[in-house]
Amino acid sequence: MDQSFNSRLLDTAVAELAKLPGIGSKTALRLALHLLRQDKSAALDLGNSIIKMRENIKYCHKCHNISESDICPICGDSRRNHAVVCVVENVKDVITVESTGEHRGVYHVLGGVISPLDGVSPADLEIESLVERVQNDNIEEVILALSPTMEGDTTNFYIYRKLAHLPVKITMLARGLSIGNELEYADELTLSRSIRNRMLFSDTFHDKKH
Amino acid sequence: MDQSFNSRLLDTAVAELAKLPGIGSKTALRLALHLLRQDKSAALDLGNSIIKMRENIKYCHKCHNISESDICPICGDSRRNHAVVCVVENVKDVITVESTGEHRGVYHVLGGVISPLDGVSPADLEIESLVERVQNDNIEEVILALSPTMEGDTTNFYIYRKLAHLPVKITMLARGLSIGNELEYADELTLSRSIRNRMLFSDTFHDKKH
Repeated sequence: MDQSFNSRLLDTAVAELAKLPGIGSKTALRLALHLLRQDKSAALDLGNSIIKMRENIKYCHKCHNISESDICPICGDSRRNHAVVCVVENVKDVITVESTGEHRGVYHVLGGVISPLDGVSPADLEIESLVERVQNDNIEEVILALSPTMEGDTTNFYIYRKLAHLPVKITMLARGLSIGNELEYADELTLSRSIRNRMLFSDTFHDKKH
Repeated sequence: MDQSFNSRLLDTAVAELAKLPGIGSKTALRLALHLLRQDKSAALDLGNSIIKMRENIKYCHKCHNISESDICPICGDSRRNHAVVCVVENVKDVITVESTGEHRGVYHVLGGVISPLDGVSPADLEIESLVERVQNDNIEEVILALSPTMEGDTTNFYIYRKLAHLPVKITMLARGLSIGNELEYADELTLSRSIRNRMLFSDTFHDKKH
């Protein structure tokens, strides 16, 4: 920041805010001036919540989800099925899958997907630790729940090859028509896959029973 | 926030970030997860800079610009012309005017413009304190440097009426064609005003000497 706002304190806060992704120096200045206009408690609460979060949140040793202890509440929950592991890209996706209430097993957070363009190789991800879990923890099923993108598919396939020799069932999220969308708006690839992978109508009855 | 991210610390930080203007809960979560991925120092620096800024920045008793002491560096600068006061809407506009290097006087920050729609009345602004400064501080000229909007013009006129009976010259920023813009793209109102307020060509020579 070359600009000076007559106050080194403001300069510093603006520079720090501008380091956040998607926040430029103009937005950062707007946010800082907003905080100056608010009650003092608003800025202190914000600052302290960021510090406390960063100082105290760890990652679960088992599934690499965020946690306030060595083992996250999901991995520590004996009512969940620890033999079924849902593999997701990041912490946000754990929240997304949890919000469906459909998965009663546990998770494994990769920390990204394989993406040579972004310089993310398998070694940067928690793939080895997944293989170890499958080898040592009596895992019966691994559900691959990555995004249906090229990177997600590449990662799915990489993990599949790593696990194929182990006695574990490997499944992935179903792909097909989005519920509630008109057929004419479905993209060709999704539609042709949906035809190829068509399901027995009677099987849809089981959905309800689950 | 109803959503729970398995960590009260994360929930709290996301809720605090989402209170910032223009930042929704999804962006707030993205920012929080970003801070968790970064070095610890990034989050601590951000949090501390916000807290320090809010705890230590005050407003100048004279011009109401932000300041780290009772009198801001501009009001405390004896080399500036304290008889010429530039009236601006907010702290940001002080920075904008300063960046031109054209104003060697001091400032008066109103803290907004009159806007009945947004519930901002003259009493919410630093207008009385401006009148007092003009009465007591030997002010020779007040430069109205508000935005050329309806609210800005309303505020200009309100201040003008408040100061008209005092022995002070009241000026405002020139309005006309933006420099570098093609004539055909100038809006009608600006163009007709520019014709009405046309200036002597020989006067433009003074610009350089200033």
